[in-house]
Amino acid sequence: MRVPQPIQNLIEAFEKLPGIGPKTAQRLTYYLLHVPQIQLDELASAAENLKKQTVLCSICLNVNEHNPCDICSDSQRDQSLICVVEQPLDILALEKNGKYKGVYHVLHGAISPLNNIGPDELYIKPLLDRTNKGTVREVILATNPTMEGEATAMYIAKAIKQLAGDNMKITRIAHGLPVGADLEYADEVTLEKAMEGRREY
Amino acid sequence: MRVPQPIQNLIEAFEKLPGIGPKTAQRLTYYLLHVPQIQLDELASAAENLKKQTVLCSICLNVNEHNPCDICSDSQRDQSLICVVEQPLDILALEKNGKYKGVYHVLHGAISPLNNIGPDELYIKPLLDRTNKGTVREVILATNPTMEGEATAMYIAKAIKQLAGDNMKITRIAHGLPVGADLEYADEVTLEKAMEGRREY
Repeated sequence: MRVPQPIQNLIEAFEKLPGIGPKTAQRLTYYLLHVPQIQLDELASAAENLKKQTVLCSICLNVNEHNPCDICSDSQRDQSLICVVEQPLDILALEKNGKYKGVYHVLHGAISPLNNIGPDELYIKPLLDRTNKGTVREVILATNPTMEGEATAMYIAKAIKQLAGDNMKITRIAHGLPVGADLEYADEVTLEKAMEGRREY
Repeated sequence: MRVPQPIQNLIEAFEKLPGIGPKTAQRLTYYLLHVPQIQLDELASAAENLKKQTVLCSICLNVNEHNPCDICSDSQRDQSLICVVEQPLDILALEKNGKYKGVYHVLHGAISPLNNIGPDELYIKPLLDRTNKGTVREVILATNPTMEGEATAMYIAKAIKQLAGDNMKITRIAHGLPVGADLEYADEVTLEKAMEGRREY
């Protein structure tokens, strides 16, 4: 038996999403056969309008409804402190505790030679333009603690120093044991970084 | 920071799906920010049309584009052999090997007193009408081997026998060890059923 085309269409659309295999796509689709049409319409219009109703902020390149975005146009926030992240989702994570009062810069990726992503594929140039205006006091490099994230952080640090000299403060978020973790199960590199980054009590 | 509304809308639509939590919904949504608009449009139209372009077959109650469905209107298939399943997805599973040449009947659920689903909430009445016409030779009960599925199978078997008498052959799919399984890891009930259902070699 052939799967009916309208069902097959949705299964295929779901299968294209990361982490959703053929079985899950099937299950989701057949589940949706039992929901009210209004829920399907909501999903449809949300998907259709996701990109149409959002823009990249021309300052920090975060995804937002407005340009400049809510954070860049917020006078309560410290516009001289820029936190550099790989993805818009990272901003959500950092904003959750509400402690950070600076602004952001989204690279939309990390340098990854294996995937043919070099510095020019990322929004590094706009970051250098921002830091070059003399209004920025500190840049916090909050790329992921992965090989790609470290390489990206290193590249950006070097590029900013070349342009702005040593006046600009460039920092990297701390590596160490996550809160609640167990020393016993930590990997060697994390432990090494945790020891290196120890602070006076 | 508030999540932009267009993004929040899609996150919420994804969260309503079974097995998709807030984190996965976020990840899927932010992934979709990077895909071409055409992929979003495909997802949108597939979701919108899923129910609009499908109907329940008035004979077997499977979800299909046509009524009667492809299987019920297929003269190559044995219309006197009905396999009763809980969900349309079960038909997909049974059709995969292409061995079964009869037709189906979809109950759209199983009897579950805990969830307030009694026989009247399922499509049992249409099944009895079908078996009562004198054209059906055998009913295979292929509900799931769960408490609900067993109760449903038992209820249907009893109801058909009351109406059609003992002329109708009513069978239940075999319980036992799945192919490739290990005796050592099988649960007691499965082993008991496997012994009970043993056949001459």
